[in-house]
Amino acid sequence: MPLYTLSQIESWERFYRTNFVNSLTGFKSINLIGTVNNHGQTNLGIFSSIVHIGSNPPLIGYINRPRKAATQTLANIEAVGMYTINHIQPSFVNKAHQTSANYPEEVSEFDQVGLTPEFIENLKVPFVKESIIKYALSLIDIIPIKLNDTLLVIGKIICVQIESNILLNDGFLELDKAGSICSNGNDAYYTTSLIGRYQYAKPGIVPEEIS
Amino acid sequence: MPLYTLSQIESWERFYRTNFVNSLTGFKSINLIGTVNNHGQTNLGIFSSIVHIGSNPPLIGYINRPRKAATQTLANIEAVGMYTINHIQPSFVNKAHQTSANYPEEVSEFDQVGLTPEFIENLKVPFVKESIIKYALSLIDIIPIKLNDTLLVIGKIICVQIESNILLNDGFLELDKAGSICSNGNDAYYTTSLIGRYQYAKPGIVPEEIS
Repeated sequence: MPLYTLSQIESWERFYRTNFVNSLTGFKSINLIGTVNNHGQTNLGIFSSIVHIGSNPPLIGYINRPRKAATQTLANIEAVGMYTINHIQPSFVNKAHQTSANYPEEVSEFDQVGLTPEFIENLKVPFVKESIIKYALSLIDIIPIKLNDTLLVIGKIICVQIESNILLNDGFLELDKAGSICSNGNDAYYTTSLIGRYQYAKPGIVPEEIS
Repeated sequence: MPLYTLSQIESWERFYRTNFVNSLTGFKSINLIGTVNNHGQTNLGIFSSIVHIGSNPPLIGYINRPRKAATQTLANIEAVGMYTINHIQPSFVNKAHQTSANYPEEVSEFDQVGLTPEFIENLKVPFVKESIIKYALSLIDIIPIKLNDTLLVIGKIICVQIESNILLNDGFLELDKAGSICSNGNDAYYTTSLIGRYQYAKPGIVPEEIS
């Protein structure tokens, strides 16, 4: 099997290297983060670095690029203390991808790409109306990753909106039925098909599929 | 659309809540982390919290559960300073899942589940021979997440082994052709199907698919 070393990887042209390293991390959760600034200007950005931090309390993190490279989403989160994470379904994948274009601060990606901001209850931050799995978070911590100036942004779930027919009676969400997509690299999007769910593993027992 | 609040989520039974919150984060990269201790005892564990930190230098992170709950993988990484991350393909998904069983420290999950440790060059740490996308990392940093005692473990790529027919001429890896799987929740595994790759997004231009 071909072997690639660090010095080879470091010698590659930037986009080639970025594609390669972003594929190595495997399929990723791909989501739209919805925010608003203190003047009511909404913002929507696509993020593939969502990571589960813990279930009790329910904490979810994402990696934000260095502040100088990616300002609006993080600035809004810090100003308002709140944001939404919205799963992407195939019907609006092209619109979701388009939010990655470098729009000026004074326009909203919602308007530019044709997605609908949705406000519920007394929450200041916009959900994506078209998404059928989405949740709001309050900002809890921002941990600097000094190695490359990225930031681990951690939020605590405030509330969750999901279509009712995908919640099973053990709390599991059938994301494949919901059509939530995943991504690979910088620009590839995928649907999924269930292989199976396996029982809690114990030593010496062959794990059976959950039917 | 049904709405679930934080207080509802906090009131749920532990496994129900864990399934629910672990599904909200979306499809995850699911991988086997291979390690060894200073006495040559190998260890293999399944992790769904791999996250891209940066491409230059190539840095990849994962969230480790609190030290008291998950000791062996992290202890080995700290002792040896090195580890491998191995994608999972459908032919060994049941074996990969079984590594999550609570085996005693003195046995190797490789032996117990029937996967093959593979050593290359002068690297001390075991790859999974059966995996067709895998890489070795050197430990660079461990960042404590004080909110819930988890840890962000960051490694720098040492070398990468991949089957040659999945590497495209722009550095992108066709993970769907490789059969790398993704996961949802604690126990569900999925294959994927490509929707499309989209061109780099620019304001005012409808993104076209890369053919």
